[in-house]
Amino acid sequence: MTDRPLRRQPLYSQIKQQLLRRIGDGEWQENDALPSEWDLADELGASQGTVRKALSELVADGLLYRAQGRGTFVAPAPSEWGEGLLLTPGLFNEQPDDLAREFLGISRGNASDDMAAALQLRRAAPLLRVRQLWRWHGIPVAVDEAFLPADEFEGLDARWLRGSSGVYQALQQRFGIRLKVLCEQFRALMLPREESALLGVTGMVAEAPALSLIRVSGSMEGVPLEWRQRYCLTHNWAYTARRA
Amino acid sequence: MTDRPLRRQPLYSQIKQQLLRRIGDGEWQENDALPSEWDLADELGASQGTVRKALSELVADGLLYRAQGRGTFVAPAPSEWGEGLLLTPGLFNEQPDDLAREFLGISRGNASDDMAAALQLRRAAPLLRVRQLWRWHGIPVAVDEAFLPADEFEGLDARWLRGSSGVYQALQQRFGIRLKVLCEQFRALMLPREESALLGVTGMVAEAPALSLIRVSGSMEGVPLEWRQRYCLTHNWAYTARRA
Repeated sequence: MTDRPLRRQPLYSQIKQQLLRRIGDGEWQENDALPSEWDLADELGASQGTVRKALSELVADGLLYRAQGRGTFVAPAPSEWGEGLLLTPGLFNEQPDDLAREFLGISRGNASDDMAAALQLRRAAPLLRVRQLWRWHGIPVAVDEAFLPADEFEGLDARWLRGSSGVYQALQQRFGIRLKVLCEQFRALMLPREESALLGVTGMVAEAPALSLIRVSGSMEGVPLEWRQRYCLTHNWAYTARRA
Repeated sequence: MTDRPLRRQPLYSQIKQQLLRRIGDGEWQENDALPSEWDLADELGASQGTVRKALSELVADGLLYRAQGRGTFVAPAPSEWGEGLLLTPGLFNEQPDDLAREFLGISRGNASDDMAAALQLRRAAPLLRVRQLWRWHGIPVAVDEAFLPADEFEGLDARWLRGSSGVYQALQQRFGIRLKVLCEQFRALMLPREESALLGVTGMVAEAPALSLIRVSGSMEGVPLEWRQRYCLTHNWAYTARRA
C-alpha cells in the first residue's frame, strides 16, 4: 500500500495536469492554438490516443475548445459580467463599452449564513474576499466582492489577481477551474456606505439607489465555488441581457 | 387581376390559419394534443402532406411543439416573467412562488422616442398600453406596462386580456403570434408616484428603491413587437435567473 506506482495517476491525467500548468505559466494564451496531437504525443513521449484523451477532458472541463479542422485552442475565461453588459442610457442600440477593472485587494473572512448555504460550506467557513472596481471611461460604475472557499483556492494571491483580467481568469490559469454562472439575483437597494465611498457617491446623492447583483458560480459539474456581490450605479447605465 | 383564385392562399396556409383559429377559440388548450395528421387530413379533406406542412410551420413559429412518438401539442405561451422568477428572500433555495396577475386595463397612447426606436416604429406611433399588477400571496410586488404597436394588434381588447393568463397568451391565442425576449435591461430607480400608489408604497417609505425592468420582445424572426416596463419591489423579494 506504500508503493508509489499504486498512487500514480494514469498517464493521460498526468498529461492533463502538465498542459494545465503550461497554460497557467502563459506558454499558451487565451485563444492560442495548442500543438497538434501528433506533435504533443511526440514531445511528451505518449501515444496519440493518450494525448487525445487528455485534450478531450480539458475540452469537457471548458478549459480548451476545438474548432473544426483548425485545432484545439485555449478557452478564454468567462466574462466577469456574465451575459449582462453595462451600457450607456441610449437603450438597446449601443455597443457594449469596455469596462476597466481595478483590483482593490484580497483578504480573508468568514462565510455569512447565506454564503455558507449557497456555497455548501459549514457555518462561518473561511473565505477569500476579492474586491474589484469597474470604471467606465474613468468613472466608477460598479464595485464587486467575490467570496471563494479558502480551502479550495489556497495560494490565490494579489499577484495572480493583479496580473489577470479578473477572478475567473485567475482561477482558470492558477487552478485550471473554469466557472460558470449557476444563479443570478437582481435587487434594487440603497447603496451601502462603504460602496458609496468607492463609487464616489457623496453629498446630496449619498442615498442613491443601486442595482445589487448576487451571483453564485460553480464548476462545470455545478459545484458552487463563488458568491459574488456587485453594486451598480444605474442612473446613467443599465444592466442589459441580450437573448436574440 | 381581379380573379379571387389568384389571391387565394395555398391550401397548407389556409389549414394553418384554420388550426390557429381553432386554437384561439379554445378547441385545444395549451399542452393539448392535436389529432393525428391522418385524422386532420381526413377531417379537412386535404392530403397528409399538406397537413404536415401546415403543422411544421406552426412548430417553426413556436405555436405547436412535437413530442417524439407522442404527437403534436399546443405550445404554452411564454411566461410573463421570462426566465426571471420572483422569490422570497431565502436566496437560491426557494421554489418559485405562483404570482397572481391582475389585469388593470388597456388604453391607447403614443410611442416615446425610446419605444419607437426599439420597436422600429415611426415617432409617436400609436400603441396599445396594457397594465397588469402582480401579487404574491395577496401583496402587490410588481406592476407592468406593456406597449404594443396598435396597427399590428387591432382588436386586442379587455375581454381577451382578462380571459388570458397575460399579454403573451392573449397574443398567441388571438393573433397566432408567439413572442420571445429579445433584450432585457435592469436598473435601480426610485419608484415613480403612480406605481408607488399601485404597489401600496405610501407614507415613510414612499421613496422606495425599485427594480426597473425594460424588456423588448419580438416574433420568432426577431421583429420587435412589445416594449415592457416593469417595476418590482425587492426589499423582500429578488429577481432571480437560474442558469445551471
